[in-house]
Amino acid sequence: MINERFTRQIEFLLELDKLKNIYRQTLVLHEDRAENDAEHSFHLALMACILAEHANEPVDVLHTMKMVLVHDVVEIDAGDTYCYDTKGYEDKAEREQKAADRLYALLPEEQAAEYRALWEEFEAGETAEAKFANALDRIQPMLLNYKKGGISWMKHGITEAQVTNRNIPTVTRGSETIGAFAQEIIAAAKDAGMLL
Amino acid sequence: MINERFTRQIEFLLELDKLKNIYRQTLVLHEDRAENDAEHSFHLALMACILAEHANEPVDVLHTMKMVLVHDVVEIDAGDTYCYDTKGYEDKAEREQKAADRLYALLPEEQAAEYRALWEEFEAGETAEAKFANALDRIQPMLLNYKKGGISWMKHGITEAQVTNRNIPTVTRGSETIGAFAQEIIAAAKDAGMLL
Repeated sequence: MINERFTRQIEFLLELDKLKNIYRQTLVLHEDRAENDAEHSFHLALMACILAEHANEPVDVLHTMKMVLVHDVVEIDAGDTYCYDTKGYEDKAEREQKAADRLYALLPEEQAAEYRALWEEFEAGETAEAKFANALDRIQPMLLNYKKGGISWMKHGITEAQVTNRNIPTVTRGSETIGAFAQEIIAAAKDAGMLL
Repeated sequence: MINERFTRQIEFLLELDKLKNIYRQTLVLHEDRAENDAEHSFHLALMACILAEHANEPVDVLHTMKMVLVHDVVEIDAGDTYCYDTKGYEDKAEREQKAADRLYALLPEEQAAEYRALWEEFEAGETAEAKFANALDRIQPMLLNYKKGGISWMKHGITEAQVTNRNIPTVTRGSETIGAFAQEIIAAAKDAGMLL
């Protein structure tokens, strides 16, 4: 039976097609183009299940996967704010709250509440799943940037200290193992001249 | 501790970046370009959690999400075979088995077995999760093709009977609700002249 509930779910799924058009600063590894939010979210969901054993605390993998799939949905309206853009960060929270008001409300009421809560949980970064999801959200672009020769870091003149301060505490909070890996990446990127 | 196990997991995750470069026949909704396998898999994972209630049999959502995330991995080596390309289908199974041999084996042994088994389960299409995952894998491109004005169908001169025969039994087997929706799409696409 095709009812209003199903129709709203389909509308939400169609709206999220726009994540395929929101381009990030990170490049994909095997083409000369930016990665988009759908690809990034795909990669995080895959990392969430493959790397779950490395979370510092036991995580509910399904919960983590749902969280990473919708963590960037607000960018459909609010856009992607480059993580080292301090000016863009000033009104980021306000822009994103407005976007969340519109986007999650496309879903049937109780799913709207569930998925918006997942995004807020991700943003707050306090639960085991949110800490792990945030760690993945930081290591994924670092790993791609490093494997891509640091093009994105060099373009913006990013320093070793910027990458370290922004990422190491968050990654380590979610996973000591991935945190150690992130530190290795930064050291190697510095040695290779990819970071100032 | 960064050990061989973690290193293999990262190698697999990096290898799967190539899914971002495998282009399908379906177009994304808001750009003039083909969708890639990473974007398609992202969309299926999202559908798996948002639409799970519509599966004919109760499904393990985590299991379904993992399955759809890796269901196209073999295309990294075997390429995407257009679903109405009967010639390409002749050696598809052989090409894909060889690809699976290489790709899933990048993972640590027990994860390699788990994820390869998920792909084989998807291909066999017999479990509740595989039936639902296959339904999603068929409705997602149909929905995008229809919303995009049928460009991909018209380009290849696809008929109503081809779309119906290929998709309706599979979609309906996974979900009566989504099957009914698929039939509505086909009828509307026919009316609009998108299908021969």
